[in-house]
Amino acid sequence: MSTERPDPTGAGQGPAQRGRPERGTSRRGFSRRGLLLGAGVGGAGVAAAASMGSALGWGETQPEVRSISYGAETVPFYGARQAGIETPAQAHAVLVALDLRDPTDPNSVTRLLRLLSDDASRLTAGRPALADTEPELAAHPASMTVTFGFGPRLIEALDPSAAPTWLKDLPDFEIDDLDPALCGGDLLLQICGNNPISLAHARRIMLKSARSEARPRWVQDGFRSAHGAQEEGSSMRNLFGQVDETVQPERGGDGNEFAVWGHPPQGFSSSLSPWVEGGTSLVIRRIRLDMDGWDELARSGKESSVGRDLSVGAPLTGTREHEDPDFEATSALGFPVIEEFAHIRRARQMAPEEQILRRGYNYDDPPSGERISDSGLIFMSYQADVERQFLPIQRRLAEGDRLNEWTTPIGSAVFAVPPGCQPGGFIGDFLT
Amino acid sequence: MSTERPDPTGAGQGPAQRGRPERGTSRRGFSRRGLLLGAGVGGAGVAAAASMGSALGWGETQPEVRSISYGAETVPFYGARQAGIETPAQAHAVLVALDLRDPTDPNSVTRLLRLLSDDASRLTAGRPALADTEPELAAHPASMTVTFGFGPRLIEALDPSAAPTWLKDLPDFEIDDLDPALCGGDLLLQICGNNPISLAHARRIMLKSARSEARPRWVQDGFRSAHGAQEEGSSMRNLFGQVDETVQPERGGDGNEFAVWGHPPQGFSSSLSPWVEGGTSLVIRRIRLDMDGWDELARSGKESSVGRDLSVGAPLTGTREHEDPDFEATSALGFPVIEEFAHIRRARQMAPEEQILRRGYNYDDPPSGERISDSGLIFMSYQADVERQFLPIQRRLAEGDRLNEWTTPIGSAVFAVPPGCQPGGFIGDFLT
Repeated sequence: MSTERPDPTGAGQGPAQRGRPERGTSRRGFSRRGLLLGAGVGGAGVAAAASMGSALGWGETQPEVRSISYGAETVPFYGARQAGIETPAQAHAVLVALDLRDPTDPNSVTRLLRLLSDDASRLTAGRPALADTEPELAAHPASMTVTFGFGPRLIEALDPSAAPTWLKDLPDFEIDDLDPALCGGDLLLQICGNNPISLAHARRIMLKSARSEARPRWVQDGFRSAHGAQEEGSSMRNLFGQVDETVQPERGGDGNEFAVWGHPPQGFSSSLSPWVEGGTSLVIRRIRLDMDGWDELARSGKESSVGRDLSVGAPLTGTREHEDPDFEATSALGFPVIEEFAHIRRARQMAPEEQILRRGYNYDDPPSGERISDSGLIFMSYQADVERQFLPIQRRLAEGDRLNEWTTPIGSAVFAVPPGCQPGGFIGDFLT
Repeated sequence: MSTERPDPTGAGQGPAQRGRPERGTSRRGFSRRGLLLGAGVGGAGVAAAASMGSALGWGETQPEVRSISYGAETVPFYGARQAGIETPAQAHAVLVALDLRDPTDPNSVTRLLRLLSDDASRLTAGRPALADTEPELAAHPASMTVTFGFGPRLIEALDPSAAPTWLKDLPDFEIDDLDPALCGGDLLLQICGNNPISLAHARRIMLKSARSEARPRWVQDGFRSAHGAQEEGSSMRNLFGQVDETVQPERGGDGNEFAVWGHPPQGFSSSLSPWVEGGTSLVIRRIRLDMDGWDELARSGKESSVGRDLSVGAPLTGTREHEDPDFEATSALGFPVIEEFAHIRRARQMAPEEQILRRGYNYDDPPSGERISDSGLIFMSYQADVERQFLPIQRRLAEGDRLNEWTTPIGSAVFAVPPGCQPGGFIGDFLT
């Protein structure tokens, strides 16, 4: 039983500090030792590695080989764009929306952003925050990212002229049953990672740093499948059991460049542009799922409501998740195979701009009273322009999506996502 | 992007059904394909495996190799003892305490236990429950276990003479600030696993099965470090940053046989015995951590409160986590190195019976109002006899543990843990 010795001062050179890998690559070399250490996550991996060594004549089983695991993996914080947007969605999310304390002034907001950026840069690198009271909890960031979103009041405090026109509450939709306590916020921290302990620590550290300038407005935890528990690259499932987020901009090549960052492809006539270079927007909708009502539907009813099968998420006109639905196909009786109000027909792209990068999380909170579920989806989407990309889709869904019968938006927020920052700077420094 | 096709009917032979491994072993063979598939968890693992193949002359990188991951791993449900007790603690826990509806009668309780045992046997094997409305969510159990605990009313309903004498509320302790809504329960379901989606699904399925006979009394989610994010075998840390659960019965050889299952070693004079062969007890204490108060302590103050250092959890008289503390050691000034009211001095074993198997989880619930944390520890311990094993330790801690200043028990429950069952039987069948 060995135990790692993290450096409690944060000044030393812990494993997470010896150079930073490029995003998406591993810091592990492929030396024999690296291979053995890198290959094993959990007991089975170690056993496989040890057995492999033996089978290849490298000696007997190697009980001293220990899994280093993915806990030390990091995603760079600094850069022209913030991490946690195009970063493959981690298993866990902690969302914290903060309200600035009155009165706001540029100095206090700047101080807040500087402090939080410093926290985020250290914690995502696997290092303790400044004056971290639980430095050991920073040791396993497991690809943690912290992504900042700005509400109208925060931008107003720094530079009123900078606010994008779409930065405001979404229009009311008839399907909504919004709880104001779950809506809005002046500053969003989207803390994502593969290790729930690191996220709990980061949330605490950053709320402490923010305490004198802001108070928590709402907090919501979410999850997807655990890191490594499912085939890599497979789409998430929501708690209705549906394959979700099949349609993403990147499936069409450089889709994110256009949809998220507002850079139309060469020769493409579109006025889509980001509110600031390297910036984008984030829409969050907390959507309650009526699990009991959904249960009453037969499997075929569920599938026709969505327009996809439940087993692999294939459109009802196909067999594979990522093939294009055939919206013209009709049954022998002449009815459309994908119904008029099926979710995927209503949500499908109707204009070149209608692409969004989805990054949602499930929630499953403790039920109260006689209820046995308080479950739902934290819908999250990134797009360069809320009005031209998100809203047209949302309007069609609000007008007529069969899923509306079993889903209710209870929380809603829109944030302007600023660019990333460079070492020495802070998120939002371009506004000061 | 391939997607697995689980069998929605549950009748077919999915991967999780092709034979069941022994507890603690992997179902993966060590064929070349098995090795490649088994070794990779996440992208780095796949890359390592592919690179390995190349280095060994097995051909070029193998983009078709996909990680099967630990999602399919299972822990057997059936057996003389229930799973989820000695099973290495999984990353996530969902605890559900149920109240039986009035009036209770043996038939309805038996029906309830039969249904829930059937659900648990299927879901832990990675198969959908009977009439599972979201069968795909059962496909990645990731070592899920469901462990049943019985409260007094449940045993009363089946066989009043069977109730162990220690099955009652713990005595009041001055340190307690118990919320009745977080205490007790007639039936506990301890659902643990490495994949939060599978746990959410299992919770829903089992609460549906129970609905006509029972209602949820309290529900609490907890977490440890994510599966594979930390060195295997390292102790958990709680949100105070302390290494926790260092002292466990198994460290003394067959400790669990004695402490959990009530089987004294040969020649050992002890009257410890289980309430029923293969049964044990579970104590749950929901302990709120005063994070703000703890923060005010200097690092040395934290360490002397516990009696261990924070970096590796070593006793203050040593350097390694698992070495024995020297309670006699004194400083140059003649003071004990481990203080009189240090946690580990008060908690240490004072009689042969005072051993418990701990299996706790952290919680980090959304804070409300001006608070920035609602965090704590779900203390859980298994022992053959609550009164002879748990209570003496708890009394000493309640009387004088320096940690009491920053910790408050807010929930408390004791359950009699029945033996496991065999296929065709159900948990609790020995009482009917």
